Amino acid sequence: MFRVNENFAKLPGSYLFATIAKKVAEYKEAHPESEIIRLGIGDVTQPIAPAIIEAMHKAVDEMGRAETFRGYAPEQGYDFLREVIAKNDFQARGCDISADEIFVSDGAKCDSGNIQELFSADSVIAVCDPVYPVYVDSNVMAGRSGQYNAESGRFDRIVYMPCREENGFLPELPKERADIIYLCFPNNPTGEAIGKEELQKWVDYANEHGSVIIYDAAYEAYISEDGIPHSIYECEGAKTCAIELRSFSKKAGFTGVRLGFSVIPKELKCGDASLNAMWFRRQGSKYNGTPYIVQRAGEAVYSPEGSRQVSEQIARYMKNAGTILNGLKGLGYTAYGGVNSPYIWLKTPAGMKSWDFFDFLLDKANVVGTPGAGFGPSGEGYFRLTAFGTYENSLKALDRIARI
Amino acid sequence: MFRVNENFAKLPGSYLFATIAKKVAEYKEAHPESEIIRLGIGDVTQPIAPAIIEAMHKAVDEMGRAETFRGYAPEQGYDFLREVIAKNDFQARGCDISADEIFVSDGAKCDSGNIQELFSADSVIAVCDPVYPVYVDSNVMAGRSGQYNAESGRFDRIVYMPCREENGFLPELPKERADIIYLCFPNNPTGEAIGKEELQKWVDYANEHGSVIIYDAAYEAYISEDGIPHSIYECEGAKTCAIELRSFSKKAGFTGVRLGFSVIPKELKCGDASLNAMWFRRQGSKYNGTPYIVQRAGEAVYSPEGSRQVSEQIARYMKNAGTILNGLKGLGYTAYGGVNSPYIWLKTPAGMKSWDFFDFLLDKANVVGTPGAGFGPSGEGYFRLTAFGTYENSLKALDRIARI
Repeated sequence: MFRVNENFAKLPGSYLFATIAKKVAEYKEAHPESEIIRLGIGDVTQPIAPAIIEAMHKAVDEMGRAETFRGYAPEQGYDFLREVIAKNDFQARGCDISADEIFVSDGAKCDSGNIQELFSADSVIAVCDPVYPVYVDSNVMAGRSGQYNAESGRFDRIVYMPCREENGFLPELPKERADIIYLCFPNNPTGEAIGKEELQKWVDYANEHGSVIIYDAAYEAYISEDGIPHSIYECEGAKTCAIELRSFSKKAGFTGVRLGFSVIPKELKCGDASLNAMWFRRQGSKYNGTPYIVQRAGEAVYSPEGSRQVSEQIARYMKNAGTILNGLKGLGYTAYGGVNSPYIWLKTPAGMKSWDFFDFLLDKANVVGTPGAGFGPSGEGYFRLTAFGTYENSLKALDRIARI
Repeated sequence: MFRVNENFAKLPGSYLFATIAKKVAEYKEAHPESEIIRLGIGDVTQPIAPAIIEAMHKAVDEMGRAETFRGYAPEQGYDFLREVIAKNDFQARGCDISADEIFVSDGAKCDSGNIQELFSADSVIAVCDPVYPVYVDSNVMAGRSGQYNAESGRFDRIVYMPCREENGFLPELPKERADIIYLCFPNNPTGEAIGKEELQKWVDYANEHGSVIIYDAAYEAYISEDGIPHSIYECEGAKTCAIELRSFSKKAGFTGVRLGFSVIPKELKCGDASLNAMWFRRQGSKYNGTPYIVQRAGEAVYSPEGSRQVSEQIARYMKNAGTILNGLKGLGYTAYGGVNSPYIWLKTPAGMKSWDFFDFLLDKANVVGTPGAGFGPSGEGYFRLTAFGTYENSLKALDRIARI
């Protein structure tokens, strides 16, 4: 009899956002009259910008004519997109990254789930706590986690790096072995960013200890302050120790369009094994390229018009972020994030548990957020709200919270 | 120091089609005047059908308006697409498959590469020989292959099922343990189909021995003869032993649009572990849904207009297939396939090695095909041509082959 991958059974419960969706659906069924404001899952609400829509229509037309039809795309992405990414996102910031170090994909979630395939089965991974669940879940499925301890809420072979109020939500360098270190800045879920000097310490640590940093910069476009690196390659030595993941989901509202990319520098090696060459082989064997139409949409994000339009969208979301952050503070809440990211990370009132606060807020204010505990044990007592709603709904949510 | 996944080093050379692309590019550089006809990689050439183009334009417009904008799609696909698939591809053929057993994806290559994640690390896999490289390569990367033996061209922990002229290109039931059996019919690369009675023997074997069949039906739309099953679920008992993979790449020319799906029946279990539930979890954690625009394109494939238009495209490719098959036979070649599939599988003349024939054909006729040996040792001495070119080029290729 065939046997299944037994590591799946170690995963506690279902995927976080699936649980939330289910709870909200149940509440809605019990209270059909309720008008729910969703500030839970990090999904955008503004439509795709006009310049990008135009580029997609053009690409659709090309697909409908024999002379311009495109079949299989290169697995690593079309040159037209890789080049504009290398130039705008890296070279323009002084990062020496070339087009052949960029691998276009259908989004950072897939990449952040798949990237662990490059590493040995016994690698020790280190994650921030709280953390985006995909890093942990994909390593659990691959058998690197050890056993789950329900009491601590932790896997016994994973190194957890707590990020709480006490350390300004910045992890401390691991004291134990950590082969693969996942960092996400600006952070999901805390919304806090990391300064360049602080990030340089991680790069130095990784080079010294032979660790690889998986740097998830999905929220880079929301950085508003100086001194916050947009890419880990702004740090010296990062090309020998870091992979960077990027997403168009939050930058240009592509959550339903699906586009992202990974940067794997050619200098990143373990002995003779080049991670760039391995990922090229992995994608060549298990991925079949990002849709042509979507890659043209991505290209349009960098056009003068597209670039201006997505900046305006981000500014609108950041207005929401400021409104929620300051509104909550005005109501006496302790809240973080919201300055260099679209997430507000608030302390639950009176030490309420995260999931209790979720139920409380859903019931009393019809507002959906994400319980901090869903991101890891150190998220207990915290709660994430997103700035991705409309301005009107952000105000309305605040108003309802004020009336509780 | 971090360590890489050492299984990658076991993969011999690069991905087959990458090697071919490189060889052709080199030839083209050395002979810039040559006009090369590409009948190698199975990529389509006809543009996307008008009804599908229209549906995509409509979906693009929806993405550009706040009222109709769609963010994250359900990871398992939108209901509108899953339902039309269940109805048309399965229920209409008497297969009791429901929408919640269908998981929409960005293509069968990803699914066929990822599906092995559901099984235990020590599972023994069985593959036809010759075979589509992804089944083997994804299991090599996951550590199930054992060592590669350069002399035999085989991995020592994989069960190979030769498909050659002697057995009518149909594999024999394995005599040794085989937990996961990959079958592809109509077959890539041989182009041969399997009859329903013959396939029933595999389903019975799998149920009896506790094996799972991964049934790749990517070329189902090319079946022209009666008595050839379009789905493995036409066989009794398949729901307790088989996963089916489907693609829109060849059915509707979606190689650059990217759409496919997997069928995992709820009855398919190992003890309490439901493979349907595990894949739901896997996709929820590591996949972020197929683009909305692409799912609407898929829906249009089933509309009366779309359905008629893609049938016409397939008829055009099958006219090429018949022309190439009969043309080669007329020239004295022994050739197979081409009746229920877009692939023609020919024996190289005078026992020439596959790669020698590749070079010979490229040089003497400027025609690119795929060396049979690239699909496995039993493909040695064979060569694959595809019917996906234009009719004009199919004739021209034949004419050039005739003049060699």
